[in-house]
Amino acid sequence: MPHKRLFIPGPTEVRVENLAALARPQIGHRSGEFRALYASVIPKLRRLLGTEGKVFLFTSSSTGVWEAAIRNCVRERVLCCMQGAFSDRWFKVAEANGKQADPLKVEWGQAITAEMIDAELATGGYDAITVVHNETSTGVMNHLDEIAAVMKKYPDVSFLVDAVSSMAGTKIDIDELGIDVCLAGLQKAFSLPAGLAVASVSDRALQKAATIENRGYYFDLVEIAKYDAKGMTPSTPAIPQIQALDAQLDDIFEEGLEARYERHAFLAGIVRGWARRHFALFAAEGYESPTITCVENTRGVSIADLNDELAGQWAMISNGYGVLKEKTFRIAHMGDTQEWEIRGLLATIDRILGLDG
Amino acid sequence: MPHKRLFIPGPTEVRVENLAALARPQIGHRSGEFRALYASVIPKLRRLLGTEGKVFLFTSSSTGVWEAAIRNCVRERVLCCMQGAFSDRWFKVAEANGKQADPLKVEWGQAITAEMIDAELATGGYDAITVVHNETSTGVMNHLDEIAAVMKKYPDVSFLVDAVSSMAGTKIDIDELGIDVCLAGLQKAFSLPAGLAVASVSDRALQKAATIENRGYYFDLVEIAKYDAKGMTPSTPAIPQIQALDAQLDDIFEEGLEARYERHAFLAGIVRGWARRHFALFAAEGYESPTITCVENTRGVSIADLNDELAGQWAMISNGYGVLKEKTFRIAHMGDTQEWEIRGLLATIDRILGLDG
Repeated sequence: MPHKRLFIPGPTEVRVENLAALARPQIGHRSGEFRALYASVIPKLRRLLGTEGKVFLFTSSSTGVWEAAIRNCVRERVLCCMQGAFSDRWFKVAEANGKQADPLKVEWGQAITAEMIDAELATGGYDAITVVHNETSTGVMNHLDEIAAVMKKYPDVSFLVDAVSSMAGTKIDIDELGIDVCLAGLQKAFSLPAGLAVASVSDRALQKAATIENRGYYFDLVEIAKYDAKGMTPSTPAIPQIQALDAQLDDIFEEGLEARYERHAFLAGIVRGWARRHFALFAAEGYESPTITCVENTRGVSIADLNDELAGQWAMISNGYGVLKEKTFRIAHMGDTQEWEIRGLLATIDRILGLDG
Repeated sequence: MPHKRLFIPGPTEVRVENLAALARPQIGHRSGEFRALYASVIPKLRRLLGTEGKVFLFTSSSTGVWEAAIRNCVRERVLCCMQGAFSDRWFKVAEANGKQADPLKVEWGQAITAEMIDAELATGGYDAITVVHNETSTGVMNHLDEIAAVMKKYPDVSFLVDAVSSMAGTKIDIDELGIDVCLAGLQKAFSLPAGLAVASVSDRALQKAATIENRGYYFDLVEIAKYDAKGMTPSTPAIPQIQALDAQLDDIFEEGLEARYERHAFLAGIVRGWARRHFALFAAEGYESPTITCVENTRGVSIADLNDELAGQWAMISNGYGVLKEKTFRIAHMGDTQEWEIRGLLATIDRILGLDG
């Protein structure tokens, strides 16, 4: 069966040029060719993320970097902001690694605000906080700038941010925001295949990590930093994904970061307008994500049937996540997605469901 | 510059058909397409490994699966067989994860024998052992069948085996050998790109894991088994590498497992004969690897210069690892490597070094 064009919030669609970059011949991970590749990719990631600090590559999903952030940057007690499937799971990862983790929980669809965080951190006792910037299961984007402003009051609390479905889709200025670890996988707004994750790591985080016990080896930031200084990774990385990332970053800069972020906001506006007209938005007002829209299924249509119809046209959207299945559906408008694709998708859904265009 | 044909012991050369499989369009990791892919790959891996038990996919390098084996299968104290750079590092991983790890150490180039293991385990106190089947840094392959026979005396000791550079290059019959965890990355004898590792996991290992604290999340075998039962992975895996693996396993079975292993032994024989004629073998007699030959540089030639000459012909061998640099060099004859490639390489080295053919 022909490939279905992915409008799901990850993995996202990958352009054929980037698939070709993925398929370049292999190179030794201790060779000059690899060091040249590494030396090409890292500064581009720094530029994308607005940081003079370290950016590391992880051969793992983003879940692995959650574990890295927890094992390296939580000494004893971490506050976990929870507002959907993925932020909830980061809490679970913290507990699974033996850390004392407390939930700061809101209903799915709601945002975590700077005020809530301030109130919790003011009680003292936390040495780290986990925040999911853009909750992929609910289409909620927290106001990271406001949260970052509050975090400046707590310089001893490691500021750990999951930007899995926002990085490369909206501006995140790491150094200005003062984020200690900011992580993402490639299969979301980068529009690249899964298998590699990236994270910025502040000097403060690295210094803290060096004093923390039981960091393990695979995700040990101190070990990764040691190899990074030599322009390499500690073990054999996902070389194909790094080659594709190198190519895609060039294309991202050619489009221009501002233009890319504006395109995301523009496409989000189109989808939100459509969703409000025919359904409702699941995300709290003012916190709607620029990369993914979660639509409340107020009409009670069968999302499974709708997706079957779309499959016949070699396209695919996403049902609601977990408990939100059939109660919501999700359309991703991130990565390399263009206006004509989104307009075409929505008009086709209109036709399938018999909605006024 | 054109790609250099890799005769290094990983990453190994990948055929263009498998690069094409790597570059297939992306699919959702919770979709029917993915479950079909998973349902295709896992039984093929079971067949390759001679096991009715579980085989899991890990989006990580093999180093990550070392960590998985340690965190899930070592309750308190592990005996680590050490005989080269990689087996030594597994010991380091055990310690980094807070386990009590004791070395069973031989000189680089020597083998770990069943007798040595028996003597150590007889002292009691160990609940797990790590064995590297084929030490990539020295070209030594331990006699896994003899070790496995001894391990049957110790059913309560988890038998953890790194088959990184032997799996798919020589026969490993997991169920017959009674191995609890047997792991490998794709970028060695599978002749596939790096970014995915595979491991067999026995029911006994899974049951033990369920009783062990602080397993973390990303490498938690119990969590991975839960998703495996649904034909999926807990987080987004390296889908491109799984697609390439699916294609390559078909080709491996088409060649035939016995034929593949015989080809490896035959090529190893050619390289060993050449090495004995002009240099010497680094591996102890009787323990020479069928996938990689480590040659003692008895002539004191410059390996760096030799590799520069080969680079001019778009080919690459490997210098000695770490302390063995320039004292040894390594030629990999694993994966999809053919006789004409090995004969051509050796004859060209003869010409460059002025050796009698």
